[in-house]
Amino acid sequence: MQTNKAAKTYSAINFSDKFGLFSEQWLPKVVAELNDYQFKIARLEGDFIWHDHPDTDEAFIVIDGELRIDFRDGFVRLKAGEMFVVPKGVEHKPSAEREVKLMLIEPRGVLNTGREGGERTAQNDVWI
Amino acid sequence: MQTNKAAKTYSAINFSDKFGLFSEQWLPKVVAELNDYQFKIARLEGDFIWHDHPDTDEAFIVIDGELRIDFRDGFVRLKAGEMFVVPKGVEHKPSAEREVKLMLIEPRGVLNTGREGGERTAQNDVWI
Repeated sequence: MQTNKAAKTYSAINFSDKFGLFSEQWLPKVVAELNDYQFKIARLEGDFIWHDHPDTDEAFIVIDGELRIDFRDGFVRLKAGEMFVVPKGVEHKPSAEREVKLMLIEPRGVLNTGREGGERTAQNDVWI
Repeated sequence: MQTNKAAKTYSAINFSDKFGLFSEQWLPKVVAELNDYQFKIARLEGDFIWHDHPDTDEAFIVIDGELRIDFRDGFVRLKAGEMFVVPKGVEHKPSAEREVKLMLIEPRGVLNTGREGGERTAQNDVWI
C-alpha cells in the first residue's frame, strides 16, 4: 500500500470563471449535475416568452444583477444573493432591464421554453 | 373578470436575511424546495465527521467564507461563489478554519451525517 501518495486537489466550480467563458444571452450552460438534476448558468437581458414547465419546479438563483419574473397574477424581483422557485405548471416570463447572471436548477432534459417551444428554445444540455 | 386587480408582489428568498435569523453552527435550515429536493443553508466552523450519503449526490455552494472538503484521496477548497458536488457514496469530511456560510442542495430526508449517524446528526427538515 502506498502511504505517501500525494493528496489529489479537486477543483471547485467557480461561477465567475464560468461566466468568463461565454457572452451570449438566453443560452443556459450546464456547470454541474446532482443525481438527475442540472445546475445551469445563463446571461439574460430583455424579455423572455411566457411559458411553463408542466412536470417540474424550476429554481432561479441570481448571481449578479437583477431578474424580474412575471406571473399571471403578479411578479417577483430577484437581486444577487436571492432565489425563487417557480412551481411546476405556473406560467412565468423572466425579464431583465440590464444583463443579469443567474443559475437555474432543474431536472436534466428541461427546455428553457418549457412546453411552449418556438424560436427562443435553446439547445439543451450544453456544458461549459 | 376583474381587470384592475393589483398584481401580487412575491418575495424572493434572500440568503443574507435568512442567515440573520440564526447563529448556530452545523444545523442546516431549509429555505426552499424544488420538487423533492431541498435548499438548506448552514453555518459551519471546525471539523465535521467523515460520512457518506449512499443514495445521493450532495451539492455545496459557498456563500461567504471558505470551506474545505476532505476525501480519502484528496480535498477541495471552496470560496464564496464556488460549488462542488460530492458524488453519492463518496466519504467526505467538511471543515472550515473560520465560520463559513453555505448552501446544500440534496433530496428531502437526507441527514447531515449520512449513514454514519451519531451525536453530530442534526434535526432534519427544519425550515427558516
